Amino acid sequence: MQNITLLGATGSVGLQTVEVIRELKEQFHIYAIAYGTSTEKALPIIEEFRPQYIVVSNKEAKQELERKITYNPVLLVGNEGMTEVATLPEVDMVVNAVLGSVGLEPTLAAIKEKKRIAFANKETLVTAGHLVMKEARKHGVQLLPVDSEHAAIHQCLKGERADEVKRLIITASGGSFRDKSREELQNVTRHDALKHPNWSMGAKITIDSATMMNKGLEVIEAHWLFDIPFEQIDVILHRESIIHSMVEFKDHSIMAQLGTTDMKGPIQYALTYPNRLDISNAKALNLMDIGKLQFERMSLERFPCLKMAYDAGKIGGTMPTVLNAANEQAVELFLNNKISFLEIEDFIQKTMDKHTIIQEPDLSTIIEVDQSTRQRVKSYVN
Amino acid sequence: MQNITLLGATGSVGLQTVEVIRELKEQFHIYAIAYGTSTEKALPIIEEFRPQYIVVSNKEAKQELERKITYNPVLLVGNEGMTEVATLPEVDMVVNAVLGSVGLEPTLAAIKEKKRIAFANKETLVTAGHLVMKEARKHGVQLLPVDSEHAAIHQCLKGERADEVKRLIITASGGSFRDKSREELQNVTRHDALKHPNWSMGAKITIDSATMMNKGLEVIEAHWLFDIPFEQIDVILHRESIIHSMVEFKDHSIMAQLGTTDMKGPIQYALTYPNRLDISNAKALNLMDIGKLQFERMSLERFPCLKMAYDAGKIGGTMPTVLNAANEQAVELFLNNKISFLEIEDFIQKTMDKHTIIQEPDLSTIIEVDQSTRQRVKSYVN
Repeated sequence: MQNITLLGATGSVGLQTVEVIRELKEQFHIYAIAYGTSTEKALPIIEEFRPQYIVVSNKEAKQELERKITYNPVLLVGNEGMTEVATLPEVDMVVNAVLGSVGLEPTLAAIKEKKRIAFANKETLVTAGHLVMKEARKHGVQLLPVDSEHAAIHQCLKGERADEVKRLIITASGGSFRDKSREELQNVTRHDALKHPNWSMGAKITIDSATMMNKGLEVIEAHWLFDIPFEQIDVILHRESIIHSMVEFKDHSIMAQLGTTDMKGPIQYALTYPNRLDISNAKALNLMDIGKLQFERMSLERFPCLKMAYDAGKIGGTMPTVLNAANEQAVELFLNNKISFLEIEDFIQKTMDKHTIIQEPDLSTIIEVDQSTRQRVKSYVN
Repeated sequence: MQNITLLGATGSVGLQTVEVIRELKEQFHIYAIAYGTSTEKALPIIEEFRPQYIVVSNKEAKQELERKITYNPVLLVGNEGMTEVATLPEVDMVVNAVLGSVGLEPTLAAIKEKKRIAFANKETLVTAGHLVMKEARKHGVQLLPVDSEHAAIHQCLKGERADEVKRLIITASGGSFRDKSREELQNVTRHDALKHPNWSMGAKITIDSATMMNKGLEVIEAHWLFDIPFEQIDVILHRESIIHSMVEFKDHSIMAQLGTTDMKGPIQYALTYPNRLDISNAKALNLMDIGKLQFERMSLERFPCLKMAYDAGKIGGTMPTVLNAANEQAVELFLNNKISFLEIEDFIQKTMDKHTIIQEPDLSTIIEVDQSTRQRVKSYVN
């Protein structure tokens, strides 16, 4: 039996992780969970799995939970609480499914305690990949990717030698607006942007898919996870999202991983790696039903967020932190109807242009730059 | 430096093996070659690589070579010669690229001498898979597949556990007649059948692709190479031949290997396995140029040879030997314009229907059944 700390339990990946663990109760126990403020979503999970520790994001959420819960777990609050449950000696594995760079500190803490980590928190690697990977190498910890693209690459690399890789080929569905021109993007709404053609995901990542920033963040995440230069990471438009990603080797052979657009596959694989178990509550892929898989060039002109991400990744230093914080803030403003869709891009570019890069930033520098970037982006709407 | 015995040097795979070795002269030396009677094709290779041993199929070919060759290698004749060069103590690896079940005895001999074997001789596994694999297990020899489909499966299984495999998915281009109905097959010619849409291969395998027997032989070969029941081997029509084959695992994840339709990739991989080396004389795959990959159901009614192969495989005993010998003989008759295209199928089915199965046949039984089957098929045209 492995004890799991699940960070971000009420998000899309968190809820699907719960579904996976429900089918694997013989192997896994949810020992601790952390969520934000959605007591309503969390309570059934809490009562079903009865974790020993629960972390919520503020006092009000804690009080609400205390009124409704029927047993007595340890209740903690905020980032400190997340870090505590990520490092409990009883815990074997931490599933990091939180949204945004708030996942950074618990990740670093879990690595130092040599926890097995299933990783679905790309913003953390974007903002501080050099720190996270340095610690991971130092403590011999492997980050097991949960994102379908990175889980695919991870599988394509199984049994292969890193020095025989020619390039990673990350597939992109194109998001909600893949068939719209840039002119047509002028007046799209929050509602339009939240309709992803293939995947059912949280709001932030769905907007990131529409701007293509999600793919940009994935490029940076792949760079860190697999230690591959940006020049050897390509993105290809693949409407059907069936090939989750590919790896090309020196001998021109390309390995690809295929599946349905169901996150339970990648989640289970990260939990059970290197083994594969039966999966009872996910659909198998039938290529004959799909009929065809299409591939098109990904345009950096059409999707400037992808270009910004490559730029930020190659520049390095604090620039990826700025890219990520500006994006998180701009998407929040868009979701709150404060700015237009195209202003997301403008705000990120403007913030990057104004930033003075600090090389080799430490944790406190990153946190500072993250905060000041968010303030700067907010200041653009006042 | 590894010394190689190349059996079947003037066939399509043999000639491409020579091309691969030419680029890897630092690692590989052709120590012995065997070919049939094509002195013209063989001589430049012989003079370039100067193998220590040469095997030809008959005395006339030997005399012709003796007249033309400029140095003094050991010259041998026939199946005994092939077996001798497959077992020379100086030889590290045997590339078996001969056509037909004539490759059986040298394969068994090479296995007993624990040679590394690159294997492109599917008929041998079809006719006597149980004997070959038993010897391979006994002597700890792995057969490294050269066929693009099996090389793909071999790569998809790299680092994976056999007991986690759900099924193999072998792709089929559909061959020269994939868009013809069974009525339209009545009057097709040898010339029509030899036009393969994707691959440039020898005559026999091109006809086998048109009848779909090639895919049937590959199913039986996959059954033996990867120790997978026939019920877990599927064939899917994939016109572009870009996905060379796939493996589905218990967790619904599908791994696929992709490449151009150039045999040099799979050949080099078998030679250098488990490593991958740069490949200088083969084209890389560009999925954006290809645009789309299509998948359709493979019909056993449209392609009865595929059904016959599944039947023969499942029945076992001497039935696969009969399937293979009848097919080899019928294709030869077709290539010599003695029978029509659809008579290939009829002759095989008729021969299988008349055969009384012998279970667990030994080598001499297999050779006997092989010979008597060929005689029977020939008797149908007199």
